[in-house]
Amino acid sequence: MDERKPRILLSNDDGINAPGLFALWQEISKIGDVVVVAPDGEKSAVGHAITLSDPLRVWQVEKRNGFVGHAVNGTPADCIKIAYWALLDEKPDLIVSGINLGSNTGINVIYSGTVSAATEGTILEIPSFAVSLTTYAVPDFSYAARFAARLAGQVLQHGLPRGTYLNVNVPNVPEEEIEDVVVTRQGLSNYIENFDRRVDPQNRVYYWLTGKKAEIEKEGDVDDRAIIDKKVSITPLHYDLTNYSYLEELKSWNVGR
Amino acid sequence: MDERKPRILLSNDDGINAPGLFALWQEISKIGDVVVVAPDGEKSAVGHAITLSDPLRVWQVEKRNGFVGHAVNGTPADCIKIAYWALLDEKPDLIVSGINLGSNTGINVIYSGTVSAATEGTILEIPSFAVSLTTYAVPDFSYAARFAARLAGQVLQHGLPRGTYLNVNVPNVPEEEIEDVVVTRQGLSNYIENFDRRVDPQNRVYYWLTGKKAEIEKEGDVDDRAIIDKKVSITPLHYDLTNYSYLEELKSWNVGR
Repeated sequence: MDERKPRILLSNDDGINAPGLFALWQEISKIGDVVVVAPDGEKSAVGHAITLSDPLRVWQVEKRNGFVGHAVNGTPADCIKIAYWALLDEKPDLIVSGINLGSNTGINVIYSGTVSAATEGTILEIPSFAVSLTTYAVPDFSYAARFAARLAGQVLQHGLPRGTYLNVNVPNVPEEEIEDVVVTRQGLSNYIENFDRRVDPQNRVYYWLTGKKAEIEKEGDVDDRAIIDKKVSITPLHYDLTNYSYLEELKSWNVGR
Repeated sequence: MDERKPRILLSNDDGINAPGLFALWQEISKIGDVVVVAPDGEKSAVGHAITLSDPLRVWQVEKRNGFVGHAVNGTPADCIKIAYWALLDEKPDLIVSGINLGSNTGINVIYSGTVSAATEGTILEIPSFAVSLTTYAVPDFSYAARFAARLAGQVLQHGLPRGTYLNVNVPNVPEEEIEDVVVTRQGLSNYIENFDRRVDPQNRVYYWLTGKKAEIEKEGDVDDRAIIDKKVSITPLHYDLTNYSYLEELKSWNVGR
């Protein structure tokens, strides 16, 4: 290996001014040459959206401690695409997305902008992972950021198979209370949703979406359960949505023209 | 079975005024009691986005031939959620999303709002499928709509396993030129993207995203290849993104706290 530091691209979905991104930048800067390309504002729950109907613009953003980043008026997936295809002179060696404020576990994974940045990096064949802190209360990003930097080193060392990326969730507890680091599968527990129906001052009806997980799987190898058990959860994901186990059954339908 | 017609919920991502949705409604109405809940405008490439930060509103929209639908100022996933949790008196027996103008094959599946409506239906444990017409040129939805109605009958008859849904793509050719109906897997061919860099009248730089598939897999069981071969493609999908084949390898990293 040559002496150069690895090039690491950071993004997120909470936006370029999010404290979780800054904490990640501080730790990852110690091990690599970092470029930040992140949405200009909060883009949570955007799923794997991309911007086709509007032009994208890019601004430079500077902060304390030498933080320089690019803000994009788009989604996390847009940020990775525009970084790769238009902004960066050289391909990054690694992409890290986060640190998200709030968990990205279970079926939430499919709504997550944080995860979508890692997905997009993976499509571009760059080793990628997403990291989230599982709280919406008072966050302490320090351990999660150090853990992400250490995992970054391991991903750079081991690589990842084509099409595979990692989804990391870190419990929001002091480091000494972290019980373990476990490899998990995505939970599939449903949500009980609620639409809070209200009437605005013009007498028009509107709804707020709220929801909570119906029941979390008991098995310790499920991402949500790991978090309850105060363990860091690492789930290997891929973007091949084919349900291979159902191909033959479906063929037996003989749908025909 | 009782005599009542199946309740079928329709949605899409091209918006409630899209001709593909109207064509679908015309055919599906022949076999079921149909409710339409669709975005108020075009929501393509929104991925599996949901609306948490803005209130959702619902309007009734009427068209020719007795078409009545609900327009929602949200994404396809929002439409399915609000239909299920707030608008419908009874659970639907089936959800059909489409007919999308343009293919939803290969990695495009992960960006697709059309598919996300079927995903959301599946999370709610309702048999669901998405249907797309693979053209951006002059569309003829008539065969695709008839095919969707026939497939709807088969899905109602066979059911689908929990967590599994179908992604259907129909070539935009006259019915007599359709070669076959095949069960496929999602293509994984990458994209070559391009950001068209321009300068606006205020001398500010902006970018348009464009892209094309790098190279389509040669295997006949891949969704994109089926379309090239003038075959209707049906891919069983699931929303468990875990790459099970990589769990053991990842455990061998022994990441540790």
